[in-house]
Amino acid sequence: MSTVKPGYVRPLDLRQGRIDLTHGAGGRATYQLIETVFRPAFSETWPRGWQATGDDGARLPPLPPPLRDGRLVMATDAHVITPLFFPGGDIGSLAIHGTVNDLAMMGAKPLYMSASFILEEGLHLSDLVRIAQSMARAAKESGVAIVAGDTKVVERGKADGLFISTSGLGLCSENLQLSGQMARPGDAVLLSGSVGEHGMAVLSQREGLRFDSPIVSDSAPLHELAAHMLATGAALRVLRDPTRGGLANTLNEIASASHVGMLLDETAIPVLPPVTAACELMGLDPLYLANEGKLIAICAEADAPRLLEAMQAHPLGRRACRIGTVTDDANGFVRMQTAFGGQRILDWLMGDPLPRIC
Amino acid sequence: MSTVKPGYVRPLDLRQGRIDLTHGAGGRATYQLIETVFRPAFSETWPRGWQATGDDGARLPPLPPPLRDGRLVMATDAHVITPLFFPGGDIGSLAIHGTVNDLAMMGAKPLYMSASFILEEGLHLSDLVRIAQSMARAAKESGVAIVAGDTKVVERGKADGLFISTSGLGLCSENLQLSGQMARPGDAVLLSGSVGEHGMAVLSQREGLRFDSPIVSDSAPLHELAAHMLATGAALRVLRDPTRGGLANTLNEIASASHVGMLLDETAIPVLPPVTAACELMGLDPLYLANEGKLIAICAEADAPRLLEAMQAHPLGRRACRIGTVTDDANGFVRMQTAFGGQRILDWLMGDPLPRIC
Repeated sequence: MSTVKPGYVRPLDLRQGRIDLTHGAGGRATYQLIETVFRPAFSETWPRGWQATGDDGARLPPLPPPLRDGRLVMATDAHVITPLFFPGGDIGSLAIHGTVNDLAMMGAKPLYMSASFILEEGLHLSDLVRIAQSMARAAKESGVAIVAGDTKVVERGKADGLFISTSGLGLCSENLQLSGQMARPGDAVLLSGSVGEHGMAVLSQREGLRFDSPIVSDSAPLHELAAHMLATGAALRVLRDPTRGGLANTLNEIASASHVGMLLDETAIPVLPPVTAACELMGLDPLYLANEGKLIAICAEADAPRLLEAMQAHPLGRRACRIGTVTDDANGFVRMQTAFGGQRILDWLMGDPLPRIC
Repeated sequence: MSTVKPGYVRPLDLRQGRIDLTHGAGGRATYQLIETVFRPAFSETWPRGWQATGDDGARLPPLPPPLRDGRLVMATDAHVITPLFFPGGDIGSLAIHGTVNDLAMMGAKPLYMSASFILEEGLHLSDLVRIAQSMARAAKESGVAIVAGDTKVVERGKADGLFISTSGLGLCSENLQLSGQMARPGDAVLLSGSVGEHGMAVLSQREGLRFDSPIVSDSAPLHELAAHMLATGAALRVLRDPTRGGLANTLNEIASASHVGMLLDETAIPVLPPVTAACELMGLDPLYLANEGKLIAICAEADAPRLLEAMQAHPLGRRACRIGTVTDDANGFVRMQTAFGGQRILDWLMGDPLPRIC
């Protein structure tokens, strides 16, 4: 007679094991995966005294009084980056930073996140553990709690390793209204640092390229830098992180949404020398490469100097600089003063030079 | 000289067109996809006076005063169902109902949702439009606004048509605490209707099976039924929708979380005759098949009659019935009195008889 409890499943082999379809079926194997991989990692991010109950949703702690009068902000991102691990991060840390930064760009304090996983049958459990731990680390650093999740498994060949969708909830003050629609002619365009590292780091990892100085993703949480900037009281109109499509595309989006143009100074835009070199080699423009730890700020001209100073005082804004000015242009053209004294139009991203970089 | 504005892209061909990688690149094509497919559909769900600004996140309207003192509830789901369209619904309506129901099972009023899309290159735009419209319809019916989204595209063969992850935000009253951990010996176990339709509807569509009476998914939003039940003031301990893993697995989850057993009456569990017939034909047990519009309620014995009456008074609970009683059993066994007078243990779901049904 067996003394095994009904529903017994063998312990997970976190070293050699792989994901199979039962891990997504909602039965004991799913429960085991959650309890062995996700709960130990994500519980590190939970607020004191709170814990996930294993129910259909997460009942959040009461909002702290100073925030109760604020406005909720919600953001979501799907992450399909390949490869899963790259210099400077992995799909897990990226998934956290991506959503934390979306909330931060709305002027919100990131508070809670949910994560849903689509796993391909055959995924190494050791990779999943590494990714879950990386998510937890990034969430802790960002001050957000991962409070809800879901896991599905699809058959071999029906997905590409692992996709993660994250959603975030944050709170911003009632009176704050940052939006890509609010840039006005005469405003200053600021950038928090050098561009192109994330896209180039992922590409070099994917293609097995080696450079003299390794290029590392800039993936980082921007909420503190943003809060620091908001605290200056400067007349901030727009905060935006130039991810997919890079600086060029994000500026075009803002110009289009605000019905303005922009005039940039090409020489003012910082690009690290190894990124410049790799771009030249591969025929890519760093202004179209994704960033995951940079922000664009547009503010009233008069406030630009002190805002820039505040940015430069923060570790993630040390290389912050002014890169241009918002102009009156109903066509929404983003123009760039080139190093040679000419002007060129910096167009929207066309095609997809680098698929799956986030 | 061309008069075409920089970044011009051809209008989307919503009839014959397909998704390509540029739709996920974050440039003009992504913008065009959002503006042509998602915004027109989802704007139907937005609260009066509110609209998406195209920024990194959605700044939500102020919470209505009676809700401000409540507790936020957050839930998320990944949806990987195949086929994308099935009798009684599609991946879009399912994605809405799934998350609405997760919130409803926490006793929360569903308010806002985000949706992130992972599209496979080659997906028919006509299918995507149909799915987006179906999501909007389901959201409107459920009283939730789809306020934030994200779209990624992966290369042909790297995903299976379309995956959707949804996250939901709701509010429940401060004092309400429903949880699978709260069942107590002596409590009544109620079920809102017949089981197995969703799983069998998807399976029959996938396998091209035809039955005399077509089997239709029960996919439906349960928030109104749940609110109606909460309004009775009955001592409700647990609300749970038996999705993946079916009734059997969900009851085992509750028993395990509450450290109790259950004794069910097999003859009391409603199963529609065509589902019974199809299950017999295919060697499946309807108690393990997924449902998407049913709920299990566990309440104090004394309150069972009036709670049942309230359920039966709602269109989605017309066939509600009592199916068993919570027992004192440290092993957490779910036992079932069979039609033949015997008892059997209703175990956790083992393996995955029906992958990708949600």
